[in-house]
Amino acid sequence: MMESLRTLQRTHLLTVGDGRFLTVESHVVAFSDGSIVEDWGWVISPDYVNVVAVTIDGYLVCFRQPKYAVAGLTLGVPGGYIEAGEEPLAAAQRELLEETGYVATGWQRLGSYAVDGNRGAGTAHLFLATGARWQQPIDADDLEEQELLLLDRRNVTRALLAGEFKVLAWAANVALALLALDESQPQ
Amino acid sequence: MMESLRTLQRTHLLTVGDGRFLTVESHVVAFSDGSIVEDWGWVISPDYVNVVAVTIDGYLVCFRQPKYAVAGLTLGVPGGYIEAGEEPLAAAQRELLEETGYVATGWQRLGSYAVDGNRGAGTAHLFLATGARWQQPIDADDLEEQELLLLDRRNVTRALLAGEFKVLAWAANVALALLALDESQPQ
Repeated sequence: MMESLRTLQRTHLLTVGDGRFLTVESHVVAFSDGSIVEDWGWVISPDYVNVVAVTIDGYLVCFRQPKYAVAGLTLGVPGGYIEAGEEPLAAAQRELLEETGYVATGWQRLGSYAVDGNRGAGTAHLFLATGARWQQPIDADDLEEQELLLLDRRNVTRALLAGEFKVLAWAANVALALLALDESQPQ
Repeated sequence: MMESLRTLQRTHLLTVGDGRFLTVESHVVAFSDGSIVEDWGWVISPDYVNVVAVTIDGYLVCFRQPKYAVAGLTLGVPGGYIEAGEEPLAAAQRELLEETGYVATGWQRLGSYAVDGNRGAGTAHLFLATGARWQQPIDADDLEEQELLLLDRRNVTRALLAGEFKVLAWAANVALALLALDESQPQ
């Protein structure tokens, strides 16, 4: 029978800034074959949400924007860090409204994922929102400029498979959303 | 016009172990609105590949396994860190053979993605391999036990949308692969 890996010890190594965004630990990890790894780096960064919203007209609410870890511009989707005490769904609804001004009537969970399977780096909670309609002006505190784009499914699929959503969580969210839409509305 | 963010300064903060898997820097970052952020944590970890392989009989080559950042067991796909000087495609072909014993005739790139859009944490190169057939016994040096599973597209889609591929890169890879297969062979 397969067993999960066990954490035998954790040691704080580093806090960057006020620790809100990045802390690093070293773990001693026991594997099921009896082997032990010392100095297993473990990254603690905040959990976040992303959401693919589909408007009542069938368009996906996307961004074109820069992002620090990416060269040039990238396509993206709304999202951000979960606030203290906030549920992932509430965070997704808040981020959609703040970043795009849209609200949505149908919300579907697309899973919660370890950002780095070995080192942690937080959990990404992904959502599909349907029945989205514009409600109010954008109220985002992001440092990056974002151009809001409404793209149809065909264009989003094409851009996605061409690698134009250059951040892993965004590509995952868009791909999962397209599959979920296919499942609910066979083409 | 939107501009990319600029790195004004980088300072080494931490090397975990021999530095092969995790190094942390602090960056000073300039945003296009003129604002500057000090102490922007930046994570350096190795680039990696993942591959969804489809056999000549139409099954996807998956694993059931534990993974350190995940509670319980998860579904997964082959992959691993890129070796020094290795091309991503060569790494994907090597990992598929080592971890599953399969070789494939058709290889399609599904994009290269920043694992963390803000903090880096390496690049994930994702692939779809078709025409896969078993060639030789497994030769993996992974510490985790892995149970190899051949799953049909219907079952993979169901498990994916139920969140059973619990690592972000694996879910992204499977979702992108299913969409790419749909594009090439409309159902």
